[in-house]
Amino acid sequence: MVKTNAHKALEWVDGSLRYIDQEVLPGKLQYIETEDYRNVIDAIKRLKIRGAPAIGIAAAFAAVLAANEGASNMDNNFELWLENALSEIEQARPTARNLFFAIDRMRKILQKKGGSDKEKIIEAILKEAKRLYEEDAELCRRIGMFGSDLIEDGYNIITHCNTGMLVTAGIGTALGVIYYAKEQGKKVHVYADETRPLLQGARLTTWECMNLGIPVTLICDGAAADVLRRKKIGCAIVGADRIASNGDVANKIGTYSLAVNCKEHSVPFYVAAPYSTFDFSLDSGFDIPIEIRDGKEVSAPQGRAIAPENVEVYNPAFDITPAELISGIITDAGIFRYPYGQWGSLKIA
Amino acid sequence: MVKTNAHKALEWVDGSLRYIDQEVLPGKLQYIETEDYRNVIDAIKRLKIRGAPAIGIAAAFAAVLAANEGASNMDNNFELWLENALSEIEQARPTARNLFFAIDRMRKILQKKGGSDKEKIIEAILKEAKRLYEEDAELCRRIGMFGSDLIEDGYNIITHCNTGMLVTAGIGTALGVIYYAKEQGKKVHVYADETRPLLQGARLTTWECMNLGIPVTLICDGAAADVLRRKKIGCAIVGADRIASNGDVANKIGTYSLAVNCKEHSVPFYVAAPYSTFDFSLDSGFDIPIEIRDGKEVSAPQGRAIAPENVEVYNPAFDITPAELISGIITDAGIFRYPYGQWGSLKIA
Repeated sequence: MVKTNAHKALEWVDGSLRYIDQEVLPGKLQYIETEDYRNVIDAIKRLKIRGAPAIGIAAAFAAVLAANEGASNMDNNFELWLENALSEIEQARPTARNLFFAIDRMRKILQKKGGSDKEKIIEAILKEAKRLYEEDAELCRRIGMFGSDLIEDGYNIITHCNTGMLVTAGIGTALGVIYYAKEQGKKVHVYADETRPLLQGARLTTWECMNLGIPVTLICDGAAADVLRRKKIGCAIVGADRIASNGDVANKIGTYSLAVNCKEHSVPFYVAAPYSTFDFSLDSGFDIPIEIRDGKEVSAPQGRAIAPENVEVYNPAFDITPAELISGIITDAGIFRYPYGQWGSLKIA
Repeated sequence: MVKTNAHKALEWVDGSLRYIDQEVLPGKLQYIETEDYRNVIDAIKRLKIRGAPAIGIAAAFAAVLAANEGASNMDNNFELWLENALSEIEQARPTARNLFFAIDRMRKILQKKGGSDKEKIIEAILKEAKRLYEEDAELCRRIGMFGSDLIEDGYNIITHCNTGMLVTAGIGTALGVIYYAKEQGKKVHVYADETRPLLQGARLTTWECMNLGIPVTLICDGAAADVLRRKKIGCAIVGADRIASNGDVANKIGTYSLAVNCKEHSVPFYVAAPYSTFDFSLDSGFDIPIEIRDGKEVSAPQGRAIAPENVEVYNPAFDITPAELISGIITDAGIFRYPYGQWGSLKIA
């Protein structure tokens, strides 16, 4: 129903990982192909590949690239080498659950196939990466299907950061819900937070919406409260980088502020994420490690200073939205509502 | 006590208005001198001169420049010409109360001195502009004095936009309170919202604080909620562009979001402004006209596109913070507290 091939953020092509360089969008739509897993790690660190599900998929294919490289070197202990590479990939970024989820799946394959021929192991790892990819597209479709029930015809929807086709193998998570509703014939209009410092909303969400014919209005993050008061906003939907078992959500910095403002204006605030984003090993969101990024992202975006040199900057990449501010978490297994903790048919990641 | 001559945003020098071009700060500290009131209007429109008190002072000196020009032209009706120029100046920007306040004062001079020699009128107008300037410095000092009682030693203080020496003839309004407390020997640390789209916090507040030896940390606007939760914040203080008689405050876009987040975290939220910012002709803040500025300020800051071309943008320059979210309004006549409406010894602007 929903066209998912408008642009493929990630694709496995003849032994290479091909990805859209999200750092240069929307100015340039540039595909990069690599056979070196270190390039994938670097792309994740620099947010050329970004968004929790996409980071997970990229990590899985990085594992395949590492396995290929490890197998071609006759001098090493292949399995040990690969284990080390998996650990290296896992350290690319600290917050998104999907990265650890994907690497865990690869470790399990390695454990299961340990002692087999290198070729068998590589084959199994590639199969698992492709399975993750296909699964992710299906998870998006199911999230869209469940979530679109929450979207009424004529809704204005506010969102933060970017959660569409660029960050998944499918239609996206939060944006996927909006696409799905639109394809059902509902009229929707998106207010996109620009999402400082890296402007994923301004650069990517607007671009995706415009590509798909979804009316979109760009706003500064600080204008969200004004928009919630003055415009008729049906709901907010955002994605997630990690969800603790109590329902607390780590997501792009600014998400928590939006959730607080939604509460003030009695606007439902939804989170959309697949089961692979959940971390049931953590009781509370405040146990989630938060990546603190280089202050220059704030004070000198793209190398152009907008603040005095040497200014001190606090630049957390994510914040925690407590469960009680979240009206519903839209997953591939249905919509869960506060109080959270009973996750029913949601798979354990 | 407080050194106020660190940098003079505005100064009357030998028949010219000299001002700091705030558009190019902090990269360049550039003074511009002009004898043409139209240049002053343009500087106000382009935010080279900005901040409610500074806009008022600049408008007053623009009136002097207009009077000088009108007097030098023999063919016109001087008073009518000057009245038209005052109306022109008044239309530079729609929200800041201080602009209308200053022009009203000039109109009153013109009414009082109507029929006198041009020279007498010009002299009276210049005297009034200088009085406004001196008065503004004194208003700042008094705001600082009253407001500093609210600041405890060791406070972290969050602020939005820029409210210091760059926007007044004195130590500033919200930042003035902080300067005053610092000069009293209190240790303070400022968290400065960068204040998108025009980044007055990133560019100007950090610069002013660093010049004055006040520790400052720059954050994205969307990070304020996270800072309010994770850092020990004593209070928020912001300025105002216009205050209605019920205590509602118009201020830079993003202020309202900060106020809502302060409420969520039980952090006191203060507004600092002189009596000239009050508009007792308006019952509610929602009667204040809000300037909607060019969307390119958001989508292509300084001409560099960060979003797809032709993206729709909603770019209000100000928002309204309702009185009930404001813990106190710090004025030159003391601190007023919610519920507002009894303004006691506050002068009527």
